[in-house]
Amino acid sequence: MAVYTEFTDEDFADFIAGYDLGAVLSVKGIAEGVENSNYLLATEAGQFILTLYEKRVEPADLPFFLGLMEHLAGRGITCPLPVHNRGGNILGRLADRPAAIVTFLQGLSSRRPRAGHCAELGRAMAELHLAGEGFGLARPNALSVEGWRPLFETCDTRADDVLKGLGEQIVAELDFLEKSWPQDLPSGIIHADLFPDNVFFLGDRLSGLIDFYFACNDTFAYDIAITLNAWCFEADCSLNVTKARALIAAYDEIRPLTSAEIAALPILARGAALRFLLTRLFDWLTVPAGALVVPKDPLEYYKKLRFHRHVTSAGDYGFTR
Amino acid sequence: MAVYTEFTDEDFADFIAGYDLGAVLSVKGIAEGVENSNYLLATEAGQFILTLYEKRVEPADLPFFLGLMEHLAGRGITCPLPVHNRGGNILGRLADRPAAIVTFLQGLSSRRPRAGHCAELGRAMAELHLAGEGFGLARPNALSVEGWRPLFETCDTRADDVLKGLGEQIVAELDFLEKSWPQDLPSGIIHADLFPDNVFFLGDRLSGLIDFYFACNDTFAYDIAITLNAWCFEADCSLNVTKARALIAAYDEIRPLTSAEIAALPILARGAALRFLLTRLFDWLTVPAGALVVPKDPLEYYKKLRFHRHVTSAGDYGFTR
Repeated sequence: MAVYTEFTDEDFADFIAGYDLGAVLSVKGIAEGVENSNYLLATEAGQFILTLYEKRVEPADLPFFLGLMEHLAGRGITCPLPVHNRGGNILGRLADRPAAIVTFLQGLSSRRPRAGHCAELGRAMAELHLAGEGFGLARPNALSVEGWRPLFETCDTRADDVLKGLGEQIVAELDFLEKSWPQDLPSGIIHADLFPDNVFFLGDRLSGLIDFYFACNDTFAYDIAITLNAWCFEADCSLNVTKARALIAAYDEIRPLTSAEIAALPILARGAALRFLLTRLFDWLTVPAGALVVPKDPLEYYKKLRFHRHVTSAGDYGFTR
Repeated sequence: MAVYTEFTDEDFADFIAGYDLGAVLSVKGIAEGVENSNYLLATEAGQFILTLYEKRVEPADLPFFLGLMEHLAGRGITCPLPVHNRGGNILGRLADRPAAIVTFLQGLSSRRPRAGHCAELGRAMAELHLAGEGFGLARPNALSVEGWRPLFETCDTRADDVLKGLGEQIVAELDFLEKSWPQDLPSGIIHADLFPDNVFFLGDRLSGLIDFYFACNDTFAYDIAITLNAWCFEADCSLNVTKARALIAAYDEIRPLTSAEIAALPILARGAALRFLLTRLFDWLTVPAGALVVPKDPLEYYKKLRFHRHVTSAGDYGFTR
């Protein structure tokens, strides 16, 4: 949850005057997103989300993120659509930060997804991957295999403060994944952070995808691997095979997986688990005193990683063809 | 800012099924209110605020607060109106906490009120005081003069950690105020926490009052004293006499002040400054590590208190008749 930046009445009035949205009816900071400050904005023209980009977002990446949302929305994906200001721009400045207004999406994120939710997600993710085609900008995934070791080295000496022996296990995992990481799988635009928080439902139907601030170009199946970790484990970190099968099979119906992708799922899932273990470990060890965000438990992903180590094929995720 | 309590999908579905509000379209935790968890709820029936009452609110007081809002809304005050559930109740339970749904009010709180805002506030506060008449429940003000010394005694030994000599000054102030506190001024229902956060504007017009969780029976003019402190000082803690005059004069137009009330304003303002100094001091000294709320600076109110000590009459606030 986060509202890191507040703005003065005057700055806000100046900013909003640049848009053709009528009078402002309310602005409420919302407890959503850990990277940026988000406000729910109601105007005579409707409801919107106003985002102020905080320091963890690289300003040079914003045209990619916002342009991608516009591209995807134009291709029928229900994602936030950036609003152009009177100058034709989708990126402005407020309170000395980059800021943008996007359309508001109805829906609720599921705190405890069921198999039906996982199937809806699988379909929507496949549609997202297909719709990304033709987007003119590219952004490498800074949090793929090449980025993990440098990230770990910023906090390796303290990993064992979290769990004895954790540092050594991570090094072994890095050695293995760097040697074995699959190359040349089908790739394109992926969301890379499709956690339940970022997926909305109305009733049982998926109603929208949000938070494209980790989107990048990478292996499509890596996005499946991320969601497998984020959606298909129970609270005790055991895999729910019914959910995993629902997710992968629904994806496969829309964008049929190649046999190479299917074969690579276990190692991709292992890599995805390590990626979130590492970023959570970093956050855990570097969270400043008095921070507004409670860091998430890195060991959740350590347990998931250990699970994937023993997986031999996608059949262990319930998926066979 | 605060969302202290999250609820499961199932608990929320059960709770909302008790209301006749149609399908839920979104629920977003909002970064507003430091005492409770607040969600902006959109349903087919409109927009609402869902509040989960956390431990700082006494459950026995909730019928007073919610009943008061209903009473005031019925008298034409634009405040949140509690929604009755199918059982006819305005108070339910969610995630093991008392919970209520109230109507959503449009408007923006002013981060830097101008004199025009102060005049609007003065009028609305006078209307609120008049509209409270006839409300059937009563609630003593636990944070009036009798409550200050016991509150101070919970943290007196550490007051000097905040400012050398602060403890001694507070004791002298308590001695003086307990002896001199005015009795028998006109009284009734007061809001007791009309800070700018709790007052909404659309353009220059006041559009609503929220957050009645400190409302109580007390001297009307004490409410004026609270707002004089909260609205009429500049960032450097100097009084803006134009704003103070606007506030008091606008109030006086709707509910003419008695000469006893006018004479008592300086001591009431001094008491109100001490009240917020003490609660902020308590919060400052007792905030737990890792808290989601950054405590407010108690010394802001120490400076205001020192100002009021040198005030000799309401004329120093710009108000003469």
